[in-house]
Amino acid sequence: MSSGKDKCFQDYYDDDMNHCYGCGQLNEDGLRIQSRWEGEEAVCRFTPRSYHTAIPGYVYGGLIASLIDCHGTGTAAAAGYRQEGRPMDSEPRLRYVTASLNVEYLRPTPIDSELELRAKVDEVKGRKVKVAISLYGGGTECARGLVTAVRIPDDWGK
Amino acid sequence: MSSGKDKCFQDYYDDDMNHCYGCGQLNEDGLRIQSRWEGEEAVCRFTPRSYHTAIPGYVYGGLIASLIDCHGTGTAAAAGYRQEGRPMDSEPRLRYVTASLNVEYLRPTPIDSELELRAKVDEVKGRKVKVAISLYGGGTECARGLVTAVRIPDDWGK
Repeated sequence: MSSGKDKCFQDYYDDDMNHCYGCGQLNEDGLRIQSRWEGEEAVCRFTPRSYHTAIPGYVYGGLIASLIDCHGTGTAAAAGYRQEGRPMDSEPRLRYVTASLNVEYLRPTPIDSELELRAKVDEVKGRKVKVAISLYGGGTECARGLVTAVRIPDDWGK
Repeated sequence: MSSGKDKCFQDYYDDDMNHCYGCGQLNEDGLRIQSRWEGEEAVCRFTPRSYHTAIPGYVYGGLIASLIDCHGTGTAAAAGYRQEGRPMDSEPRLRYVTASLNVEYLRPTPIDSELELRAKVDEVKGRKVKVAISLYGGGTECARGLVTAVRIPDDWGK
C-alpha cells in the first residue's frame, strides 16, 4: 500500500472491498494495479510478467482488458469524488463496477517494456461514469478502451 | 493436453504458439482454457480460482473478459477450418488474434460455481471472424461478449 501524498486511488478502497484480482491492494495473487491523477488524466503503469504472453513477444489481450477494466473503475471512483468536491477518504465511499468494457487492439503490445495507461473521464452522469483509456507499450499506443462504470449501491454487502 | 477424440481447439495450436496466458496449453501459469464444439456452439467451462475475485463472492470482470477473449479466438480458428472443410490438424494452420473485444456485464457472476461460455459464430468473412459469447454462472447468463478476431498472417514469426 502506498502512503501519504503518493497514495493511489486503490489505497482508498475499504479493506473488505480491496481484494479484486486486478486492483485489490490486498490480493497477493493479483495484479495490484495503482492509478493516480496526472493533471486531467489518470495514469497507471504496469510491467507485465513473462507469463502474461499471447503470441511470443507480445502481451496477452486479456491482461490488457483487465488493466483497462480496473484502471477504468478506479478512475471512475476518483472522478466521482472529484465531482463532489471531496477527498477520497471522505464518506460516503464511492465504488464502481464495470457495466461494459470495449477494447480495440490497435497493434501487438511488446511484453518487454512497462505499459502505461492514460485515462480521460468522458462523462460523469448520475451513478454512471464513462472513461476512455489508451494503453501504450514502448511509447506507442497499442490498445484503446472504453469503460462504462456504475456506482455500487451504498448498502452493498451491508 | 487432451488426446484423441476429446481434443480441444487449443490442442491443435502449434507448440511454439501455445503459450498464451489465457489458452496456451503449455503456459503453466496461465488459465489453459479448453474449447470444443457442442453442435453449432463452441463451449468452454472454467472454474474460477478463489483469488479471481472482484467484490467479495463474485468473479473478477477481467477474468471474464479474458475467458471471452480466448474462447473467441479459439472458436474463430475452429470456424475457419470448418468453413474450409478440413480438420484442425491440416495445413495451413489457422490462428487468430483479437481485433476488438466488447463485454457487457449483465449481473455479478458468482465465484463459487463453474462458468460456462457458449459461443456462436456470427460471421466468417475473409480473414475476419466475429464470435458472440454468453457466459453463464450458476445457470444464469451473467455476461455477454463479442469478439472480432483476425487471422494471423501465415508467415508470422517465420
